[in-house]
Formats: sequence, C-alpha cells, structure tokens
Amino acid sequence: MQIYKTVAEIREALAAEALHKKIGFVPTMGALHKGHLSLVEKCHLESDLTVVSIYINPAQFRPQEDLNRYPRNFEKDIDLLRNYHADLVFTPDNAQMYPEGYCTWVTVEGLSDILCGASRPGHFRGVSTIVLKLIHIVQPKLMFMGMKDYQQIIVLEKMIEDLNLDTKIVRCPIVREPDGLAMSSRNLYLSSEERQRATCLIKALKKAQMMVNEGCLSSSILISEAENIIKQADGKIDYIKIVDGSTLQELAEVHSGARMMLAVYIGNTRLIDNLELLP
Amino acid sequence: MQIYKTVAEIREALAAEALHKKIGFVPTMGALHKGHLSLVEKCHLESDLTVVSIYINPAQFRPQEDLNRYPRNFEKDIDLLRNYHADLVFTPDNAQMYPEGYCTWVTVEGLSDILCGASRPGHFRGVSTIVLKLIHIVQPKLMFMGMKDYQQIIVLEKMIEDLNLDTKIVRCPIVREPDGLAMSSRNLYLSSEERQRATCLIKALKKAQMMVNEGCLSSSILISEAENIIKQADGKIDYIKIVDGSTLQELAEVHSGARMMLAVYIGNTRLIDNLELLP
Repeated sequence: MQIYKTVAEIREALAAEALHKKIGFVPTMGALHKGHLSLVEKCHLESDLTVVSIYINPAQFRPQEDLNRYPRNFEKDIDLLRNYHADLVFTPDNAQMYPEGYCTWVTVEGLSDILCGASRPGHFRGVSTIVLKLIHIVQPKLMFMGMKDYQQIIVLEKMIEDLNLDTKIVRCPIVREPDGLAMSSRNLYLSSEERQRATCLIKALKKAQMMVNEGCLSSSILISEAENIIKQADGKIDYIKIVDGSTLQELAEVHSGARMMLAVYIGNTRLIDNLELLP
Repeated sequence: MQIYKTVAEIREALAAEALHKKIGFVPTMGALHKGHLSLVEKCHLESDLTVVSIYINPAQFRPQEDLNRYPRNFEKDIDLLRNYHADLVFTPDNAQMYPEGYCTWVTVEGLSDILCGASRPGHFRGVSTIVLKLIHIVQPKLMFMGMKDYQQIIVLEKMIEDLNLDTKIVRCPIVREPDGLAMSSRNLYLSSEERQRATCLIKALKKAQMMVNEGCLSSSILISEAENIIKQADGKIDYIKIVDGSTLQELAEVHSGARMMLAVYIGNTRLIDNLELLP
C-alpha cells in the first residue's frame, strides 16, 4: 500500500498503475470506523485498484462547526487501510487541495439547500467541490459511499449525472453498533450518558417503520411520534422529515421509496440517520 | 468525419477510438469563421484525434441577449470541419446538455464577476459549466481556444487548475479581417456602415500600443485616448480597461504582461477585443 500526499504524485502513480484497471474509490475524512471499512472491503471486492482518500475538507464545515476538533487518527487509519487491502491512499493537506487564490465551486442547486443543507449552508457546496476534485484526480469507475449520509449521495449522484462524469456511486448500507446507533466518527464526541441517549435516533426510525407496518402512512403522525421518542431522550431535533428517496421532496404520505431522515443534537453533538420506510 | 448528437454516442465512439490517443478539442457555438478554423487546424496538427463541438449554450446568454438570433449555419459548418480534418463532431441539443431537472453549476468566483462578467452576470457560470461538461465527455488533453475571448480563457484555466482537471488550454492568436476587425460570429450582425465603424476597436488598441512605444505607461491616459477613438466612431463603450494578463486586475501603469481589454457596442452589436501592451 502506497501513501501519496500530493496531487502530482498520486496522478503519476495512477497513470502508471491504472491502465485498463477498474479504479474503485472511497473518499473519507479519516477517523475510520467499521462503516468506512465496510466501504473499503466492498471496493476491494468490486474493483481492480482500491484508492482511499483521507482528507478533512474545511470547505464543508461552517466557521462555528467542529472542523478543529474533528477526530484525527492518522496512524491507526493507515494500519486499518493496510489490513483492508487498500492499494493507494491519498492524504493531501489544505495547501494541496485549496492553494492560495482557490476560487472555483460547484453547486447542486435545490438538493443542497434542504434537510442538512438548510441547517448547514454551504456544506454541500463544499462536499460537491471536493468530491469533484477527487474524482478528477482519481478517475474512479466506482465510488463507494455509506447511506448514513443519504443526502450526500443524492447530491453527488445528481452532480455526476448533470456534469456527465463517468463515475458510478455504489450506495452501501449503514453499519450500526449492536444497539443500532449508526457508526459515525462524531460518535466519539458523545459522553457515555449521551451515548446511551443517542439510540433514540434508530428507535424513532424503527418505530416509524413499525407504525407503517400497522397501516399508518401519514407523515405528520409518523413524524410526531418520532419527535416524542427523540424528546423523551432529551435530544434536540434539527429536523425529522419523510421524503421521497430520489428527489428528497417531502411526502404527506409514505409511498414506495419513502425515507425518514433525521438530524438530532445529543448534547452538543449533531447526529444524523435515516431509514427507508417500506409500506 | 463522424457526427454525434448524443452524449452516449460520442462517449462510445471515443472509448473505442481514443485509447492511447492524444485528444484535442475545439468547443464552438458554430457559425464557424476563420478564427474557429485556425483552432481546428492547430488541433489537427497537435493532436491524434480532433474533436469539435457545435453547441449554442443557452446558459451563457442572459434572457435579453441574442440567443435566439445567434447565427446558425450547420450545413456549412460541417463542410468546413470536414475540409479542416476534424475527426469527431459533437452537436448535442439542449435536452442532451440540460435535461429536465438540471441543477448543477460551477462558478469561478471573482474572475467571473469583472469585465464581461460585470456586464453579463451569469455568463461565465454558463461558460464554465458547459465547458466542464464537455471536458468530461470528450476528455481532451488539449483544448484550443481563441484569445479574442481572453477573459474566457483565464476563467477556464483557473477552473481547470482549481478542479485538478487533466486538460491544457492552448491559447491561440486572434484571427483578424484585413482591416483588423477581430473575427467573430457576431460580426454578421453588423450593417455595412457599422462594419466600417467596427474597426475603431483595433484602432483604439493599436493607438494604445503606439503611445506605450512612445513612453506613455499611464493606464488612465491610454484609456482616455482609446475612449476618444471609440466615441469618434460613435461606438458605445461597455468597458475599456488595462489589466494584468494573468489576474485580470486593473493596472494603474502598464507593465510586462499588461493587456488592454475592451467591449464596445456598434449599433446594437456588442463586440470585444484585446491586445497585450508591450512596454
């Protein structure tokens, strides 16, 4: 496994290695957990060359957000990636990705302004831009992403389609802790008391599915019940919505392809999760 | 020479033909003149495969601009391209390039808001986006562009650098009519009386260079004299500026790399031209 810190170096390595190879790519911000590793594993199975990037992208954090304390664990990440058969690892710094005078941004309008985008203005502009840059550098056929960041996948799939990129996103299932909490690097922020309360997200989602199973399709009733579960755990709701899984437009009634999306603060930690609701 | 109307078709053709070939690309809006043909000629000389696109990009016109009357001359264009050894021609329609629900835009901030960008808000967002899409489809090593649209080249070079694209713009000299008027598809709009007055642009530029030769380096004096020449020809000035040729920032004094840029209305027709001023 080779580690590259500059665009020029990884470009050269890929030019030499990648000819006729199907490149698979897993973009990450490091602090790797089993969710990330499931992506690397799948990438290794489905590609000829597994490229992983570790880069905490400042452009997707707002000034008041957690950029500076976002978990970093470089040495352990590298060991894990080696064990999981990554071939090339790209670990650029900010001077590589946003050199002085950087001024080009890509925006997927509409999809970027709702749900997490409404709470985090500019977040998806930052995500879209860095992923477009990474796609240009790595030129992957397949890009593996976890469904916890469901809106991110929808935004990036739209960017890829609109911009005629030759990369396909492979949507990978959310990996969960035994008690159902979705794996996230930000789970490290939780105190042990908060960690217990954080199960309210998956409880709310499962309760919604249970109610759908019993015939309740009304989004307002399902959301109201989910709100109760979050509030009982003393979570602060950023949003709970039921949307169409393709367009992210809100639905009054659950239909095929519907998905409950939520963002909740447990203490100061913002957690997201989502579940397809099967009517 | 093959003509392709859809993204899927040209992608397939390029996948089959382009392996190990150095692809050269000339993006155009058709109504080809000797300026365009000089680009195709250069592309043919410097590339293994010459791809030309003909697409009038609605996203770079504002509603009140000349999109609907922009000259179209498809049959003649195709004949010319055949004579000039184009290999593949891409002529998509709007449904190919901006299908329903299209919502992704790329912006080169700052550089897009000055000069022509100040007079034509959104113009360079449209240019950047369509060229990015075309680069993704054609994947050229070299892209040939004329220096009449000097700001366009600077904006696109910045986009290519910022987004880590593996394409190089080859800057090609302005091709001029015998009396010095820069070739432009929009010259077709000019009445014969306007056509004569339109030489004021090159006269103003040449006068500036002559004054520089005589030791005048003051931008305000040079611009003032250029204004007089344009006004004598009854031209309406959009802007006349002397800028650094790399940053497009205005200069108080001419120095190495300085360039006079102008946009002038002759009747209802907006013409642009520019010249490097050599101190």
